[in-house]
Amino acid sequence: MTFIQDDFLLQTEAARRLYHGYAADEPILDYHTHLPPADIAADRRFGDLFEAWLEGDHYKWRAMRTAGVPERLCTGDAAPKEKFLAWARTVPQTLGNPLYHWTHLELKRYFGFDGLLSEASAEEVWEQANATLASDGMTCRGMMERFGVRAVCSTDDPADDLADHEAIAASDCATKVYPTFRPDAALRVDEPEEWRSWLGRLGERAGQEIRTIDGLLGALKHRHDAFHGAGCRLSDHGVEQCFASPCTEQEAAAIFQTALAGTPATPDEHRRFGTYLMLEFGRWDAERGWTKQLHIGPLRNNNLRLYRSLGRDIGCDSIGDRPQAETLSWYLGQLDLEGRLPKTVLYNINPAHNHVFASMAGNFQDGETPGKVQWGSGWWFLDQWDGMTEQMRTLANLGLLSRFVGMLTDSRSFLSFPRHEYFRRCLCDFLGAEMERGALPADDALVGQMVRGICYSNAREYLGLAVD
Amino acid sequence: MTFIQDDFLLQTEAARRLYHGYAADEPILDYHTHLPPADIAADRRFGDLFEAWLEGDHYKWRAMRTAGVPERLCTGDAAPKEKFLAWARTVPQTLGNPLYHWTHLELKRYFGFDGLLSEASAEEVWEQANATLASDGMTCRGMMERFGVRAVCSTDDPADDLADHEAIAASDCATKVYPTFRPDAALRVDEPEEWRSWLGRLGERAGQEIRTIDGLLGALKHRHDAFHGAGCRLSDHGVEQCFASPCTEQEAAAIFQTALAGTPATPDEHRRFGTYLMLEFGRWDAERGWTKQLHIGPLRNNNLRLYRSLGRDIGCDSIGDRPQAETLSWYLGQLDLEGRLPKTVLYNINPAHNHVFASMAGNFQDGETPGKVQWGSGWWFLDQWDGMTEQMRTLANLGLLSRFVGMLTDSRSFLSFPRHEYFRRCLCDFLGAEMERGALPADDALVGQMVRGICYSNAREYLGLAVD
Amino acid sequence: MTFIQDDFLLQTEAARRLYHGYAADEPILDYHTHLPPADIAADRRFGDLFEAWLEGDHYKWRAMRTAGVPERLCTGDAAPKEKFLAWARTVPQTLGNPLYHWTHLELKRYFGFDGLLSEASAEEVWEQANATLASDGMTCRGMMERFGVRAVCSTDDPADDLADHEAIAASDCATKVYPTFRPDAALRVDEPEEWRSWLGRLGERAGQEIRTIDGLLGALKHRHDAFHGAGCRLSDHGVEQCFASPCTEQEAAAIFQTALAGTPATPDEHRRFGTYLMLEFGRWDAERGWTKQLHIGPLRNNNLRLYRSLGRDIGCDSIGDRPQAETLSWYLGQLDLEGRLPKTVLYNINPAHNHVFASMAGNFQDGETPGKVQWGSGWWFLDQWDGMTEQMRTLANLGLLSRFVGMLTDSRSFLSFPRHEYFRRCLCDFLGAEMERGALPADDALVGQMVRGICYSNAREYLGLAVD
Repeated sequence: MTFIQDDFLLQTEAARRLYHGYAADEPILDYHTHLPPADIAADRRFGDLFEAWLEGDHYKWRAMRTAGVPERLCTGDAAPKEKFLAWARTVPQTLGNPLYHWTHLELKRYFGFDGLLSEASAEEVWEQANATLASDGMTCRGMMERFGVRAVCSTDDPADDLADHEAIAASDCATKVYPTFRPDAALRVDEPEEWRSWLGRLGERAGQEIRTIDGLLGALKHRHDAFHGAGCRLSDHGVEQCFASPCTEQEAAAIFQTALAGTPATPDEHRRFGTYLMLEFGRWDAERGWTKQLHIGPLRNNNLRLYRSLGRDIGCDSIGDRPQAETLSWYLGQLDLEGRLPKTVLYNINPAHNHVFASMAGNFQDGETPGKVQWGSGWWFLDQWDGMTEQMRTLANLGLLSRFVGMLTDSRSFLSFPRHEYFRRCLCDFLGAEMERGALPADDALVGQMVRGICYSNAREYLGLAVD
Repeated sequence: MTFIQDDFLLQTEAARRLYHGYAADEPILDYHTHLPPADIAADRRFGDLFEAWLEGDHYKWRAMRTAGVPERLCTGDAAPKEKFLAWARTVPQTLGNPLYHWTHLELKRYFGFDGLLSEASAEEVWEQANATLASDGMTCRGMMERFGVRAVCSTDDPADDLADHEAIAASDCATKVYPTFRPDAALRVDEPEEWRSWLGRLGERAGQEIRTIDGLLGALKHRHDAFHGAGCRLSDHGVEQCFASPCTEQEAAAIFQTALAGTPATPDEHRRFGTYLMLEFGRWDAERGWTKQLHIGPLRNNNLRLYRSLGRDIGCDSIGDRPQAETLSWYLGQLDLEGRLPKTVLYNINPAHNHVFASMAGNFQDGETPGKVQWGSGWWFLDQWDGMTEQMRTLANLGLLSRFVGMLTDSRSFLSFPRHEYFRRCLCDFLGAEMERGALPADDALVGQMVRGICYSNAREYLGLAVD
Repeated sequence: MTFIQDDFLLQTEAARRLYHGYAADEPILDYHTHLPPADIAADRRFGDLFEAWLEGDHYKWRAMRTAGVPERLCTGDAAPKEKFLAWARTVPQTLGNPLYHWTHLELKRYFGFDGLLSEASAEEVWEQANATLASDGMTCRGMMERFGVRAVCSTDDPADDLADHEAIAASDCATKVYPTFRPDAALRVDEPEEWRSWLGRLGERAGQEIRTIDGLLGALKHRHDAFHGAGCRLSDHGVEQCFASPCTEQEAAAIFQTALAGTPATPDEHRRFGTYLMLEFGRWDAERGWTKQLHIGPLRNNNLRLYRSLGRDIGCDSIGDRPQAETLSWYLGQLDLEGRLPKTVLYNINPAHNHVFASMAGNFQDGETPGKVQWGSGWWFLDQWDGMTEQMRTLANLGLLSRFVGMLTDSRSFLSFPRHEYFRRCLCDFLGAEMERGALPADDALVGQMVRGICYSNAREYLGLAVD
């Protein structure tokens, strides 16, 4: 029996009706990704399955290491096909992990492969996929069009060039592609070497040398404006905890100068400087009508051995357990008090914080923008069936599920769009089960309308991106 | 198909047998509410559905704000019917939220309305409900009698008059009504303005001016005695964390004088003063055989903008994430060591603390009073189907579910009694599913006896209130 | 209908096929227990059901106290049969608790009792069990053989004699019995009286007086070697949080001398001293190829009243809620950086930390030993159906379930081996449900192979104990 069937993971009749009748055909608005704009600008074609699927995928490296696969076959210098074979041998060991579902959904939807990937089927998959990748419509743009992707947002440093975005906008690309303003580098006064070099790049981009905190803010605001001009309507920030340490302009200026002189900020200085900038960023977003995304709570680079040899984002991050409620409340409350809280999407990495985040969002609704403060879909380690279900269930219990802006892939790969399908199956399975147990009215049109909103139209209306 | 059916949310045959055979007809003992005694004393009749149902309901305001309904239609000066219509428009957006269930249970049980509330049905509901509210038996007392409410406990400040309670006791009210001793105001030495004004009211009530810590304790004990005389057998406290900072009598006296002089206590002083009083309150409760309730963990008044314009309890509170285990252990352990730990019910606001609370209760059982330290039913944000189910499941796994004292509404409204029905359906659905999967013996009488205990008789025996 | 049936708790066809076809007949490797080696050396026979089942079982005491049973009948001086009767009266009150399942599984598997234990059946059970305990094959060794136990590991202090282990090894005992190195006592510089007396015993055992930190380390290493010689391949540590406070050799030496002089170490000194030793222990384990077990997070001896009269481990411990991520990351990372991180099994007591532990394990896989850092099975309060299911589900979602080393009893009793059966039913029920909802391929052989690994062969290969 085929693993990925039409009714894959849809356990009730109601779920199947909702999915096929309301969810499956909705377009995609992938409002948070790490897709490289350069690949879209160039309409890149991938040479083989390794390039398209394995290069840079730290989820897979992590699973491979756990299976006892040596580093050479993960991030090392082994040949692409050798690495693919190592992955194929690992796949049967991922039974129960989202990687097992993602893998087979992707092989089915992109390459029509109906079997199970393992050492035995690896050669067949390699040949079949590589042949397909060479066929018509399998470029980056072709893939997006095929999955009905109306728009994607990339994630960009303020110091980044927007040339690729301009090229895409000027092209006949059917998918809208917008940048996201992610100024994390501006806060790194605790690592002054890296920070100063970034400062130089930012200054160059903004056309001014940056020697003061005002210079920094001016250059960043200049880029914020430029991003807005390129259609950007979202910002994004990755933090361990919300910054919530009051800081005067004078203090921020002093910390700036200390770091500029090469002295690392103390943890307290770092927190205060971060607070100063994050409040300012919030005001800019509010003024522009943007949506701010806060990704909160990971503990990164745990494995110093691999960090020193491979750097960041190589599969050695994990879930942190710092408290989040009070700092989050302070940050949102501060901006709200000024009347300058932007639309905000909160993402937590630790599911033990689900109820804290779900309830916190409810405190800062303004009775104007529906669902103004959103609790975002299951992120990273929680971006799996159970994690997404729990997020939906908790959001339904503590807030308004009907206002949820739904799924985003957060992915670096053009082969990840079936995760929207996966999310939609999850959503319909959850709601269908609720209908069949009598917790929701047995009214397909009523529940289906909510499904459609969560799949596409809620995000479209909420974010205000220019999309059809 | 009608939404609220006889077997609403009862998914197994066993669940249906347990509910209809053992739970549905049990009386109600609502041992923790915020019902106004004055309304019972006057046997108030509500003028319209707004008065009975919307006035003061911060759950609904919170949902309405999230749906984009402006403040004028929540807490503002719009006309009652206009506010009702705004709520009716919001209801379909609450699909999946407990408000959706509560709303339709209440409309069905009080007004016989079988449809779904929305903009389309709003006029009909308004007319039908208002007509019913004008009919016989729809006063406060009538409603309690109709739902088999044998007793309710209100929540009262020690400075409160007990005149309404005396009037009720002297009347032919079929439901017993008892006060609960909630001395939170006594601890507010960090807000000396508010505290001193409360001190004045307390002194007046107790017939003595309060100028020292001994004066404060004397007046409070005087009120504790008076409450006992009025049939009170419960106290209640709302705290972010248990107070667990040892404090000598001299220190408490000094902090008292500081606050009396108008200087706010420091956070540490506040903690020590709170500890001093809370230990004393515990001793009084133990001596009197009362039950102490501890409501632990919310983060309140997050939205300063709305707090400044609307005050407390307006729907901007949320779930906190401070650690709880060590302070809770200290407080209970201290009283236990003295042999003066009263019966205690612990309520947590953050479900991430469920296992901490469930296991902590087991440490202080005394082999005398069965279930002496209770872990209470899902509170506030957790007072919904999943929250109640998780509480029961965790309690069963870590303690003795059979000793559980069950449901309370914690409500300000006389329209909330169907939440006992909702809880009982949840209990029977949980136990019925356990029977059908073979985790409990297939013995209705055995399991049904436990159901009956949790619905009514456990609370009746445990609390020692004078009820039939 | 019999409660403990062949398909007890197996809800799907797939679950039943997996359990009976792949799990039920696998041998047992009980790699973490508190079984007394002396009982195995002497091949003890129990005089009655009290001796075999109730003596020393703090789970039962805790439930009995909650049911209102006085201490005399729990830990006190009542007669054995009287205590058994008190337990029998308590059992029906444990409906829903794992004790209810364990009790009936044990009565069925050891004594063939098919009914439900209660006051009514207590006499019958007492007679039937005592008669069975007197029959052939019901000694400690006989029980282990009967349940297919290939090996058990006891838990031993470095100061312990290994004479019982030597006697067992020299006997014809069919079950291999190995010690586990648990040096918790070495860290207790905060309780110098207890610590110094332990130091004396250790010195005697190692044949040297211990007057310096080097002397302590030398004696411990000497015992580590002796344990290795006795077949030991595991160490074990119980901590509230991982020790993660850097400490120089000089500092450790000074703290040693302070405690030796009778002065309790400060909390900070205790943390630094613990860190110093724990890093050293990690290196030894890595060099020997052992597996380190870390049991993290309980809050012990909450009830000071009972602690003072009864001591430790009497049923007054509970679940703590200190943060765990950063200290755990530091400790594992430190050893990994040195290239001396041993195989490690992490156990958490608070399920709110499940995702932290599951994700942390993934950071320190070395691409050599499959599943090098394991997240262990549901421990203590979590050693129940829901706790085990959640551990498996979370492990599957965040790591590789296929590499899981599975169940251990952690028990003091020879009547606990059916907990392996219980675990296997849970595992098969979980995986069977996943198959039936289409989340795993409908391929018994594929999933069954994973089941077999988790039941026995994964632990056998991973731990490297000498077993058949």
